[in-house]
Amino acid sequence: MTVSPFDHPYLSGLLGDEEVAGLFSVASELEAMLAFEVALARAQAAKGIVPLSSALTIVTAARRFAPDVAALRQATARDGVVVPELVRQFRQFIPEDDAPHVHVGATSQDVIDSGLMVRLSRAAPILVERLRRIMAGLNELDARHGGRVLTGRTRMQAAIDITVADRLSTWRRPVENHLERLGFVIERRFPLQFGGAAGTLEAFGEKGEGVRALLADALSLADVPQWHSQRERLADFANLLSLITGSLGKLGQDIALMVQDGREIVLAGGGSSSSMPHKHNPVAAEVLVTLARFNATALGGLHQTLVHEQERSGSAWTLEWMLLPQMVVAAGASTRLATGLVASIDDIGRRHE
Amino acid sequence: MTVSPFDHPYLSGLLGDEEVAGLFSVASELEAMLAFEVALARAQAAKGIVPLSSALTIVTAARRFAPDVAALRQATARDGVVVPELVRQFRQFIPEDDAPHVHVGATSQDVIDSGLMVRLSRAAPILVERLRRIMAGLNELDARHGGRVLTGRTRMQAAIDITVADRLSTWRRPVENHLERLGFVIERRFPLQFGGAAGTLEAFGEKGEGVRALLADALSLADVPQWHSQRERLADFANLLSLITGSLGKLGQDIALMVQDGREIVLAGGGSSSSMPHKHNPVAAEVLVTLARFNATALGGLHQTLVHEQERSGSAWTLEWMLLPQMVVAAGASTRLATGLVASIDDIGRRHE
Amino acid sequence: MTVSPFDHPYLSGLLGDEEVAGLFSVASELEAMLAFEVALARAQAAKGIVPLSSALTIVTAARRFAPDVAALRQATARDGVVVPELVRQFRQFIPEDDAPHVHVGATSQDVIDSGLMVRLSRAAPILVERLRRIMAGLNELDARHGGRVLTGRTRMQAAIDITVADRLSTWRRPVENHLERLGFVIERRFPLQFGGAAGTLEAFGEKGEGVRALLADALSLADVPQWHSQRERLADFANLLSLITGSLGKLGQDIALMVQDGREIVLAGGGSSSSMPHKHNPVAAEVLVTLARFNATALGGLHQTLVHEQERSGSAWTLEWMLLPQMVVAAGASTRLATGLVASIDDIGRRHE
Amino acid sequence: MTVSPFDHPYLSGLLGDEEVAGLFSVASELEAMLAFEVALARAQAAKGIVPLSSALTIVTAARRFAPDVAALRQATARDGVVVPELVRQFRQFIPEDDAPHVHVGATSQDVIDSGLMVRLSRAAPILVERLRRIMAGLNELDARHGGRVLTGRTRMQAAIDITVADRLSTWRRPVENHLERLGFVIERRFPLQFGGAAGTLEAFGEKGEGVRALLADALSLADVPQWHSQRERLADFANLLSLITGSLGKLGQDIALMVQDGREIVLAGGGSSSSMPHKHNPVAAEVLVTLARFNATALGGLHQTLVHEQERSGSAWTLEWMLLPQMVVAAGASTRLATGLVASIDDIGRRHE
Repeated sequence: MTVSPFDHPYLSGLLGDEEVAGLFSVASELEAMLAFEVALARAQAAKGIVPLSSALTIVTAARRFAPDVAALRQATARDGVVVPELVRQFRQFIPEDDAPHVHVGATSQDVIDSGLMVRLSRAAPILVERLRRIMAGLNELDARHGGRVLTGRTRMQAAIDITVADRLSTWRRPVENHLERLGFVIERRFPLQFGGAAGTLEAFGEKGEGVRALLADALSLADVPQWHSQRERLADFANLLSLITGSLGKLGQDIALMVQDGREIVLAGGGSSSSMPHKHNPVAAEVLVTLARFNATALGGLHQTLVHEQERSGSAWTLEWMLLPQMVVAAGASTRLATGLVASIDDIGRRHE
Repeated sequence: MTVSPFDHPYLSGLLGDEEVAGLFSVASELEAMLAFEVALARAQAAKGIVPLSSALTIVTAARRFAPDVAALRQATARDGVVVPELVRQFRQFIPEDDAPHVHVGATSQDVIDSGLMVRLSRAAPILVERLRRIMAGLNELDARHGGRVLTGRTRMQAAIDITVADRLSTWRRPVENHLERLGFVIERRFPLQFGGAAGTLEAFGEKGEGVRALLADALSLADVPQWHSQRERLADFANLLSLITGSLGKLGQDIALMVQDGREIVLAGGGSSSSMPHKHNPVAAEVLVTLARFNATALGGLHQTLVHEQERSGSAWTLEWMLLPQMVVAAGASTRLATGLVASIDDIGRRHE
Repeated sequence: MTVSPFDHPYLSGLLGDEEVAGLFSVASELEAMLAFEVALARAQAAKGIVPLSSALTIVTAARRFAPDVAALRQATARDGVVVPELVRQFRQFIPEDDAPHVHVGATSQDVIDSGLMVRLSRAAPILVERLRRIMAGLNELDARHGGRVLTGRTRMQAAIDITVADRLSTWRRPVENHLERLGFVIERRFPLQFGGAAGTLEAFGEKGEGVRALLADALSLADVPQWHSQRERLADFANLLSLITGSLGKLGQDIALMVQDGREIVLAGGGSSSSMPHKHNPVAAEVLVTLARFNATALGGLHQTLVHEQERSGSAWTLEWMLLPQMVVAAGASTRLATGLVASIDDIGRRHE
Repeated sequence: MTVSPFDHPYLSGLLGDEEVAGLFSVASELEAMLAFEVALARAQAAKGIVPLSSALTIVTAARRFAPDVAALRQATARDGVVVPELVRQFRQFIPEDDAPHVHVGATSQDVIDSGLMVRLSRAAPILVERLRRIMAGLNELDARHGGRVLTGRTRMQAAIDITVADRLSTWRRPVENHLERLGFVIERRFPLQFGGAAGTLEAFGEKGEGVRALLADALSLADVPQWHSQRERLADFANLLSLITGSLGKLGQDIALMVQDGREIVLAGGGSSSSMPHKHNPVAAEVLVTLARFNATALGGLHQTLVHEQERSGSAWTLEWMLLPQMVVAAGASTRLATGLVASIDDIGRRHE
């Protein structure tokens, strides 16, 4: 079943992004959650909280463990969250003596939020790589055609002549900023979530912060105090995703408008029409606008989740699950399409008369 | 790959709706689009536009035709829309002489929009059925416990005592209104989209309206002038979906708040927690709030698509595809969960003291 | 101080609407709230709940009563709502014996929500009048130039020729539908809100419904059960407002795009630029797009208020106050601008070649 | 006329912020725009572009110049922007010989965007000051009551005991982050917009960048290349505003929920009700939720403006004017209310039993 275009057998060709969406597959999610449990057991063994032998059993078992997804589905419907059933299944999969040493002192939110951060930390470099290619494409256009002339347009109407370089720089500068910002996010690392039931690592006494540090290191996440009811980081990353799709939406809108009169830009390819086979549509340019408006919409919803009541909000947290992965994939699709669109610009600008 | 919780192998247990989501599967979509092509050929044969023999070939072939989805995906990525490639494949599938009589005078938008309407016309009765069950459940609670007492709360604080019947009526009346509205929508039928390339049935001369009437009848849709650049009907139906999830979100929020002190309501079941196995969470109640906020968010985005430029907007149209199916499934999930939640109310209200 | 463009000393010239905004002035709001108190006293006198002489005193006093707005401001900051202080001031203004007969059995929500409905019932006919003028303008263009030719554009690119009548009909049909819908809303009347503290008219025993009927009649509102925690009607009216601005936004977008090449439409007037005095901008056309996107945004927020917890939500109710009046004025401004824009079309379409 | 609660004679007592809203008054806006013209004349005199004597005349005249606001209103309705008329009036106000040296090589967007930045650069320190007071209040509560006990609640239901310090830290940490972020924004300075008609300072030849540097310095803004069609900075600042209101919305929601059972928190003051005078409502707490949801909504709209077509979008730019000032004032109101709410906490938490 395929309700979202990102997962849709053929619409995903247009709107999806295999590489980024792969990070939000069930396989990736389970892998990230089990990586958390494995790293936790190891960290707790290092601190003498669980037996080393149990930790080693957990590490080995996690590699072979294939959860019963139908049972996960049923349990998620009941519990609102997959972790209790996942932990139950995993404990059943390993020897009885080691089972109690799985998930010690951790909560659903520790597992799910940290698992999400592991995936976001993989998505960010993909976006960086794509934005760099867009930059390279724009730089090359500038080198080739920067000195040519375009009709500058304000309020959609012809204003005065500008150079191709002028227009390119309005597309390029925001991309530069996003690259800088993503670089900063990656360098600072996405935050580990680890707090236990009350968010205070209360199960570990003095050893809590030590476990957290080891855990963060193992998962390549930042070692920070628990943030399970403070969702600002997610809302802020969503903002960055929407800035990226917004900037590329402007690029797409500009190109769709330039294509109109056929004298300012020439694109290779372009989509065909079922009724007018001769017509070539700037499909990628239009879809960049679509994705910009989609992420702007979703961002408004994601900021609603900041009103995250008390220690854990079932309703606000679940709303994040409905919006954030789609925003990441929309940013993936947007960078994918923009890379191709920029590369497809065969010609831009008029020669000086 | 599963980015959206509606399609997610286990999250869909919580947030999805198999019955409604089934209407947005690729199989359903292809079936609905081919039903359009079949009904079109039949109507055109009846009006003498295509040979009857070709129409019959088309009818029979459509039953056996299984499109190459990988090729659809590739073409959609290029064309922005699946129809050109679908028609191409279908024409290749049938005898060469009949092939030109497929999709005569129709456009991508005719096929996709009408195909969507066919699916919406199946979704609406499912929502009706569920809302009726919610009504029945609330009526039964009223019959059993309506005379009991609840603490009326304004601004979240205890105000004065009300009866259970008072609270129930605030949940029930909006549902009654939605049922009436859905009934009206179903009775009036969802609108056929049929206009041809310029929306004027220009390929058919005087026969255009006759073909349209037969086509509408065959698909059980309303026979109305083309509306491919007038998206108000979709935005208005989306509004109804968000009203439904909003009303059930209020019911969910009220129940989640009532469960807090444990003296006003008793629910059977309830979700468990990975760290506190004794705790029972009103998961369905919370998720009703989530779905209300999700649809409210998406509605804002869907109304952005009303600015649908000229005869067909690639960007606005595509944005609909990203939002509307999710809104329908969210309404499905919300009615499914609310049906279960109301049925799970074992007890409500205090006895008069 | 002027944060909103609707109230702004000069931006309101562009984005405001004096006639509609007048309905949301403090004077109008106080007048509507006092009209409620007057009608309530009258209805209660008719039913023998308050002395007739007190009702008459209240009627007369309301005409002369000028509240201390500074004190209202201070009290609203404390109480979250203006009514307690307004009632206190009004009671102080009339003889001591009559004072207790003001606001008997009513709540803040009864006064504010009904007062809002009184204003909405005045706004709706203004929108009707404007939409009719837009229809008349479009009909006249059709009569004059309907047979001329325009380049039909799909995905922003030239597709095939259409007639001016074709394009006009895509602007006109949604307006027709909105007129029908507004007519229905006006005919059915906006709903009175009257329920008392718990929403059950509990202070009046058997006489409650009779008082409500008289009150509704006096205020020209519909006599319906209390709906103070059921906000679907407001969300649904907001939807209609956004449909209106959305349809006119499409008209604006189309015109802004047509103006680009200067051969398809000629507008009288148009805005000037500080740096390029020769340039004429289709300002009204652009602002129609702005207002469409503004209302789409606000609609998403207004649907968030459907999660109106328990008998009265302070936070959800207050959010309505922040969004709905602006949406009404945006619809006012949009209909005002579209009326002028349609009237300014000096020429449209090309002659058949 | 008062459509927006921020400008409303009595609702502004609840929802407004005099200090911040003052920055968006017409007086402040005109002052900031004239400050731009004055600084421009000075910078151009320093670079030999306009005569020094004219610059001095402009400086002096600006102090005495009081624009005809009614004429500004009329012109804004026509031009879509106030600057052409403002410049015209100002030129008329000064000697004929000096008049041409006003606004040389500048555009409406240079004046309006830079004028907005001047005001934002004044708003940011106000927010900093308020957030610091909130921090101080929370720190004091921690010092006094941090060791006490609260019922930790997950999914709205009682989970396990936590300390008051635990809850306070979830309110405090996001505020710390916002302070750091605002500090960074202030240190980096808000950006000057200066580009001329095509955004290329084309009127000044080699002197362009020198003029821009002097102008930025005079207005205490950052000297950056023109960004008039790159609106990411505004969208990003709006994100910060919504993060602030979101964090304080969570604080408000938590307090409104804590007040419910009366044993976990005691607030001084609280709003009264017109029907139940004994009841005390946590009005400020609720309104913090309202403002969070308002800004989340507006943020979604503001990100739609990133699709800012070509060199200047009339429709996207105007949409910013409708949303951003309200977001700033909402953040002002939220910080104002949260400061008072935290100060009003007389008691919090239970003693250990």
